[in-house]
Amino acid sequence: MDYSLLWLERKPAGALPAWAGRVTGEVRSPQGRAALRELREGLKPSRETGPALRLLEEQGKGESFRLFREGEDLILAGPGKGLLYGAFRLLEKLTLGEEILPGESAPAYPIRMLDHWDNADGSIERGYAGKSFFFREGKPICDARTRDYARLMASVGLNGCCLNNVNVSGEALYLLTGKYDRELREIGETLGEYGVSLWICVSFAAPLEQGGLPTADPLDPTVRRWWRETCGRLFKAVPDLAGFLVKADSEGRAGPHTYGRTQAEGANMLAEAVKPHGGSILWRCFVYNCTQDWRDQKTDRARAQYDTFAPLDGQFADNVYLQIKNGPVDFQVREPVSPLLVRLEKTKSIVEFQLAQEYTGQQWHVCYLAPLMKEVLDFTGPAGTVKDRISAVCAVSSTGGDFNWTGHDLAAANLYAFGRLAWDPGLSAEETVREWTRLTYGDDPRVTGTVTDMLLRSREVYERYTVPLGIGWMCVPGTHYGPSPEGYEYDRWGTYHRATCREIGVERGPSGTGFSEQYGPELGRSYGAIETCPEELLLFFHRLPYAYRMKDGRTLLQRIYDDHFAGCAEAEAMAEAWDALEGLVPEDAFLRVRERFREQVRSAREWRDVINSWLYRLTLIPDERGRPIYL
Amino acid sequence: MDYSLLWLERKPAGALPAWAGRVTGEVRSPQGRAALRELREGLKPSRETGPALRLLEEQGKGESFRLFREGEDLILAGPGKGLLYGAFRLLEKLTLGEEILPGESAPAYPIRMLDHWDNADGSIERGYAGKSFFFREGKPICDARTRDYARLMASVGLNGCCLNNVNVSGEALYLLTGKYDRELREIGETLGEYGVSLWICVSFAAPLEQGGLPTADPLDPTVRRWWRETCGRLFKAVPDLAGFLVKADSEGRAGPHTYGRTQAEGANMLAEAVKPHGGSILWRCFVYNCTQDWRDQKTDRARAQYDTFAPLDGQFADNVYLQIKNGPVDFQVREPVSPLLVRLEKTKSIVEFQLAQEYTGQQWHVCYLAPLMKEVLDFTGPAGTVKDRISAVCAVSSTGGDFNWTGHDLAAANLYAFGRLAWDPGLSAEETVREWTRLTYGDDPRVTGTVTDMLLRSREVYERYTVPLGIGWMCVPGTHYGPSPEGYEYDRWGTYHRATCREIGVERGPSGTGFSEQYGPELGRSYGAIETCPEELLLFFHRLPYAYRMKDGRTLLQRIYDDHFAGCAEAEAMAEAWDALEGLVPEDAFLRVRERFREQVRSAREWRDVINSWLYRLTLIPDERGRPIYL
Repeated sequence: MDYSLLWLERKPAGALPAWAGRVTGEVRSPQGRAALRELREGLKPSRETGPALRLLEEQGKGESFRLFREGEDLILAGPGKGLLYGAFRLLEKLTLGEEILPGESAPAYPIRMLDHWDNADGSIERGYAGKSFFFREGKPICDARTRDYARLMASVGLNGCCLNNVNVSGEALYLLTGKYDRELREIGETLGEYGVSLWICVSFAAPLEQGGLPTADPLDPTVRRWWRETCGRLFKAVPDLAGFLVKADSEGRAGPHTYGRTQAEGANMLAEAVKPHGGSILWRCFVYNCTQDWRDQKTDRARAQYDTFAPLDGQFADNVYLQIKNGPVDFQVREPVSPLLVRLEKTKSIVEFQLAQEYTGQQWHVCYLAPLMKEVLDFTGPAGTVKDRISAVCAVSSTGGDFNWTGHDLAAANLYAFGRLAWDPGLSAEETVREWTRLTYGDDPRVTGTVTDMLLRSREVYERYTVPLGIGWMCVPGTHYGPSPEGYEYDRWGTYHRATCREIGVERGPSGTGFSEQYGPELGRSYGAIETCPEELLLFFHRLPYAYRMKDGRTLLQRIYDDHFAGCAEAEAMAEAWDALEGLVPEDAFLRVRERFREQVRSAREWRDVINSWLYRLTLIPDERGRPIYL
Repeated sequence: MDYSLLWLERKPAGALPAWAGRVTGEVRSPQGRAALRELREGLKPSRETGPALRLLEEQGKGESFRLFREGEDLILAGPGKGLLYGAFRLLEKLTLGEEILPGESAPAYPIRMLDHWDNADGSIERGYAGKSFFFREGKPICDARTRDYARLMASVGLNGCCLNNVNVSGEALYLLTGKYDRELREIGETLGEYGVSLWICVSFAAPLEQGGLPTADPLDPTVRRWWRETCGRLFKAVPDLAGFLVKADSEGRAGPHTYGRTQAEGANMLAEAVKPHGGSILWRCFVYNCTQDWRDQKTDRARAQYDTFAPLDGQFADNVYLQIKNGPVDFQVREPVSPLLVRLEKTKSIVEFQLAQEYTGQQWHVCYLAPLMKEVLDFTGPAGTVKDRISAVCAVSSTGGDFNWTGHDLAAANLYAFGRLAWDPGLSAEETVREWTRLTYGDDPRVTGTVTDMLLRSREVYERYTVPLGIGWMCVPGTHYGPSPEGYEYDRWGTYHRATCREIGVERGPSGTGFSEQYGPELGRSYGAIETCPEELLLFFHRLPYAYRMKDGRTLLQRIYDDHFAGCAEAEAMAEAWDALEGLVPEDAFLRVRERFREQVRSAREWRDVINSWLYRLTLIPDERGRPIYL
């Protein structure tokens, strides 16, 4: 096989409970049957009589499961999908050697999905793990890997897969219009067997581009009819289809604004078309001016999504989910939580994370994202805590055709953690990483200690040697890999720091763009004042002189120098710590990860030296400790 | 026809001399016959008797021609190629309405050629005028345009064409090995009819890549034999082939250094292989470290070519020409003349200009390059004046499949001027531009006045609003279009300005990298001292504080601000001046150029604002005149 099964490679071993010797049950649904099959494959039961694990399939489409004892038997009860999640959970617990306690489990959200930015030509936008395994040479493909993908998804509780890039182009435009019905149906069935619903991205301009209509205006009756008819045909041909994900009025793509309509009018038109088929619309809120004049100091991209969508709260159909990136800008290593996530009162929302490490080392650097996800889910704003406000969760996928699925072996931890947190946002980043590490590498405490420790620290390490204090966007334009402190400064993307020899940052408090006020009075006041703004977000919210004194008495500049030296040293130490695992983890994994660490260390040094040198050249203020900075 | 004939569109008109009524002569060579044909097509002679223009073909391969009177007849005498150049000259003079005086003319250099960076797939590296007309879909093509290209070449006295990109790749690798002999032969014959020799670029690694040998070591006997045999076959199959142009040990390409050999050993090996066939080797000197660590302050890319090649002076075979770019770095709008051009004593050299405006506005901005070419040709160093020292001239071509050949109509003036100066480097930039303008647009003084004036000023205008005082490289990495003041600063290309809040530039005087000393004691002293260094090259040679006082009393910084405001205003004025020519030049040309000027003005404003803002942010020193600069 040219790919691994990640955390599913390892099976329960050693002394198993008596009931594990026999697996039985009456299962009818495809998911129930899959559950039974997975348990039999995982446990290799050998008895025909005696204590048993019994599956009890209940009616319904729910996803919860219960475990309880009946004499010497263990009963796993639930609807088909619940049995599947229960089966994988049971297998994981047994692999981990944990005691199986009675209880029940239900997912926190009905939609827990991965968004794949796969293109029909087989490339993946912001893909860092090889070519697509969903598309090859313009066509969707369904093969053994599709099924194993679905197994991996189900094993961590994920239940949705959006197949293609939000920037729909090429042959992917025809997923909507019948050309690839057969392939989609096959993929949908394969995924569906493991409880994973199929979603696709569609182009808002499809009536124009594929339908031959003169407009895509969402209020035009012919456009509405075209969508209704197109959906009528498509949902019939692809019964497992759950709905559409739409990037409209975003980075050059058409949308309702193109026709002078609101985002609600655009989304609702599509919602109406998919509603008869039980479908939903995931409507991305990534709407901002991407042709900003860098000279313009009034427009603040951070404000855009809230300014566009908050006034429409209450106007969206009930099968529309507003898909909101975790931060107000774009997946930087440190941003505040998007204010839209904590202000909407009457609209369903789905938070979007990015497992694809576009801005966090592109799966060459270790960057465990569960702490970031937790930060967002646990964030409390005026209307409550994010994890309680949102209706669904999704993440841009980090997967591709590489043997290890995620390019960096350790990046698989992000995929695992996202699934676990999507099911239960109350889990901690520590629990999930420890689970993943033990499932992946076993129980040697030297391995679990080293790996969990480096993963838990990795995001802050990456943050320290890259972009300081939430300022973002000092990466190479286009590729987004490696440092370029002024790369976006005179460009059209609305991402500026406007650094001079004295000050750096954009003022987003009340005296500046007023972005902080989108958080409501209390939080807004806190972010809006320099003294109360969390230090890690200081340069996201404020323009400050390099001489500004941090709480610990260091200057802002010295803090940045220190962070860069420290972050890089930590990256070097992580690489050494990994080297010490030689012989304790499988050799192929050891070598793959060692190669990645070498690149991470090289790149961390480059980041350290470029950012420090750039600031030194700007200010000519030397590092207080006299460490090397280059003129 | 989907292309124009540029300055050949216009034919002699009005009252012509009596001899123009009859054109006669005994011509035998293809070039002599072409001369007769061109004259008959151009003059449309109508008499069978009476005064005549008589062509007198002499023996030999020379290129000179003589004009003299015999009674009422005018005699054009010379070998076939000379007749061709004489014929075109005569037609141009008549079109311009100039008196035809007896005299003779001979080219200053035996090789006067264009280097095309055309790829076999039809793209052109640094091409700004459409797709290649030499290659389509992987194959060389020969059609009517090939012949008209040759006519244009001959009409300005050019006699060589290197068909393919110096970065040889794809199917172009097989030009050497027989696969495209038939096409090359046909192109060679078509060009040859107009006196234009065919050259091709070859890869130094060809013995390895195409020959299947284990090495391309120039001292390896099997490698030498492979080249001898390959050349034996190729020159026989393509009789018009003049030789090879080679980019070796340059920007990642293999070369003699790959095998621990000198540049002379590499070039001489190829020279030996082509010698039996009368061939020559054009050996590019563009050898430098393109993976420099930006932290390294000792390595100076400007030094590299001289340091590599000067010590080898005298070691090159007599059919090797060292091809030297006009400046020591890479075709920036302002560089000193390459010291290699004035220090070689015992080696043939060919100067390389770049008509393709890679760094000078990419044929969207007007940038007439004859003043730059004159500056180089007239430059006097320790071993004499460049135009007297060099043995040949070439230029990277600006042509492509566009209707107007050069993207910008006014860029054709560069092609024209290059040909004229290659024939006679004593001509002035003014003469050539006036000739081109009148041949192209006729004699309306409003047109000739406006166009010649803007062309003559255009290079300095471009220089003023882009990169200050010779510092170079503030363009967007990769594309080289538009401003990015720190774009190359932390990269591997050896092109740094290391600007701080106080100083800018690399010190290349004796206290710095010592580059200035490559010019010998006298010039070296002059460039090496800040007080005697020409101001336009101040930041090429020196690192200076922004507060440095220029000769006119302004600070360096104020001078840069002023230049940028002035340069941009001049670009705007040029655009307006062009607008005033509506109705005076053909409408299609008027509209094409107007579109280009709009982009030039937009881009000039961007350059002005980005460079000024960047310097202002670095220094916080405002413009003395309070003009807008953006934080």
